[in-house]
Amino acid sequence: MTTPNIKLNSGHDMPIVGFGLWKVTNETCADQVYNAIKTGYRLFDGACDYGNETECGQGVARALKDGLCKRSDLFIVSKLWNSFHDQPNIEPICKKQLADWGVDYFDLFIVHFPIALQYVDPKDRYPPGWYNDASGKEVKRSNASIEETWRGMEGLVGKGLAKSIGISNFRGVLIMDLLRYAKIPPATLQIEHHPYLTQTGLVKYAQENGIAVTAYSSFGPHSFLEMDMKEAKDAPLLLDNPAITQIAEKHGKTPAQVLLRWATQRGVAVIPKSNNQGRLKQNLEVGGGWDLGKEEIEKIGGLDRGLRFNDPLHYGVNLPIYV
Amino acid sequence: MTTPNIKLNSGHDMPIVGFGLWKVTNETCADQVYNAIKTGYRLFDGACDYGNETECGQGVARALKDGLCKRSDLFIVSKLWNSFHDQPNIEPICKKQLADWGVDYFDLFIVHFPIALQYVDPKDRYPPGWYNDASGKEVKRSNASIEETWRGMEGLVGKGLAKSIGISNFRGVLIMDLLRYAKIPPATLQIEHHPYLTQTGLVKYAQENGIAVTAYSSFGPHSFLEMDMKEAKDAPLLLDNPAITQIAEKHGKTPAQVLLRWATQRGVAVIPKSNNQGRLKQNLEVGGGWDLGKEEIEKIGGLDRGLRFNDPLHYGVNLPIYV
Repeated sequence: MTTPNIKLNSGHDMPIVGFGLWKVTNETCADQVYNAIKTGYRLFDGACDYGNETECGQGVARALKDGLCKRSDLFIVSKLWNSFHDQPNIEPICKKQLADWGVDYFDLFIVHFPIALQYVDPKDRYPPGWYNDASGKEVKRSNASIEETWRGMEGLVGKGLAKSIGISNFRGVLIMDLLRYAKIPPATLQIEHHPYLTQTGLVKYAQENGIAVTAYSSFGPHSFLEMDMKEAKDAPLLLDNPAITQIAEKHGKTPAQVLLRWATQRGVAVIPKSNNQGRLKQNLEVGGGWDLGKEEIEKIGGLDRGLRFNDPLHYGVNLPIYV
Repeated sequence: MTTPNIKLNSGHDMPIVGFGLWKVTNETCADQVYNAIKTGYRLFDGACDYGNETECGQGVARALKDGLCKRSDLFIVSKLWNSFHDQPNIEPICKKQLADWGVDYFDLFIVHFPIALQYVDPKDRYPPGWYNDASGKEVKRSNASIEETWRGMEGLVGKGLAKSIGISNFRGVLIMDLLRYAKIPPATLQIEHHPYLTQTGLVKYAQENGIAVTAYSSFGPHSFLEMDMKEAKDAPLLLDNPAITQIAEKHGKTPAQVLLRWATQRGVAVIPKSNNQGRLKQNLEVGGGWDLGKEEIEKIGGLDRGLRFNDPLHYGVNLPIYV
């Protein structure tokens, strides 16, 4: 099956459902990507920081070799990590990431966080993570401004290394500033987005300004349990929430499908992952073909409690980008 | 009586208690400023947008003439309105505001909002407010970036027109960006701050980075009732809140004094206003000399509900700086 596309402000089409590669283990990654392509996934959302781009590329290469699809059918997303915000580092790291994927352009390349850290040489440690040395204690900031970084991102488009460029984990006031000086406006904004954190104002602002929104962690706390995050363990699971399960039952869908469809009906793209072939297929069926009712959408949105999990502060990193 | 100072990163001292000039009417303004100086106030927090800087200046002039204090005893604060963010407009408008006040430097000049609007000539309308024409319908943005505006602000320091420069209504992620390129870091951050909106993370971030925090609307909804704001009318008054009144009673202070002392004990400066000479004096007595207990401070902070009143969205202006 195919999923609907969102038309980006760059003129390119982005599938509204994709496969998210965060926390996909190196051992299984190539197979998972291959199987997802087989199931019909075309968008893959990767990042330097996920530490699995080489394996992602292996899965893609095998799928292309087996003729499951062409490169031009795929929409490959990757992200600029914090340590590479200084302009001279942007093109080299993007090229390294392209080489890891074994492709010669990204469909979308995203500033992962509005956080600039000092450069770490990939020869020394890759992916570099939050810290500037292996002791894992020191977070050393760089003074690369968002404008400087964005100029580098725009350069990638000019050189054909990225078809579209976007941002992630930005707030409204910083997007407002970016839009003042951007020569190429961001095509997408990727944010944590689930019924406990609906971010209605931010979604509205981005969409009104022609920026497509992609949700990560669509299942809320679920994604953070494996990271042993206290905030996630303290929150009731969305997948078990009666408000969700009742709606799922009524539609003959899974709770996961309801959570994803709730997002896509807001015009928000989703990037779930799964190791399970059946769920992989189910997750792909949330781009359309069935609809939640207006009241159901409101009921789900009513679960909002401003509950954010993916905050650097929760990882012990004192960079309060959400205050 | 004198109030304690906060040492700013610019090297200057700022009184921790001042007089806020928002919504002080033109008719009473000169007298109020004069009386406040007589009562012992030294910091006056004004702004172009308050529309009363000429009258503020008249009050100051009379006080200086009567020998109540010297100019150097005063700490005069004003703010750059949104319509003057483009760099060429910054120095001229600052000079106009200085002329209105009848002084030749501001102790602190603040970017009022991280919002850039198109220029309105003061000859046509002053203060210009949020709209670009008298119809009050069109909000026209300018593309002046925060960096461009900040360069203009830094220029004011270079020319001796402002001793210190600061920001207001900025969030953490935008301050983080500003600190990357600022040659002169902001000395202060002025934000809405009361027990319904404690902004603990933002206050901590600013203070850790050497930026002094000033609270406005310390009494919460109270300040917004006269504006007929729905959000304020729906919220229980802080001044009547039993958690506050009980603590006030215990200390033999007014609820207003408790709210202000709660802020100053967090190291946050306050700028209340009052038309009443008695309350004016009471409000000045919150810089020290008596302390809330640790448990009381926590109890007051426990009232936090993320309730923000001073949001452009509440004025019908679609500029979501807080999403």
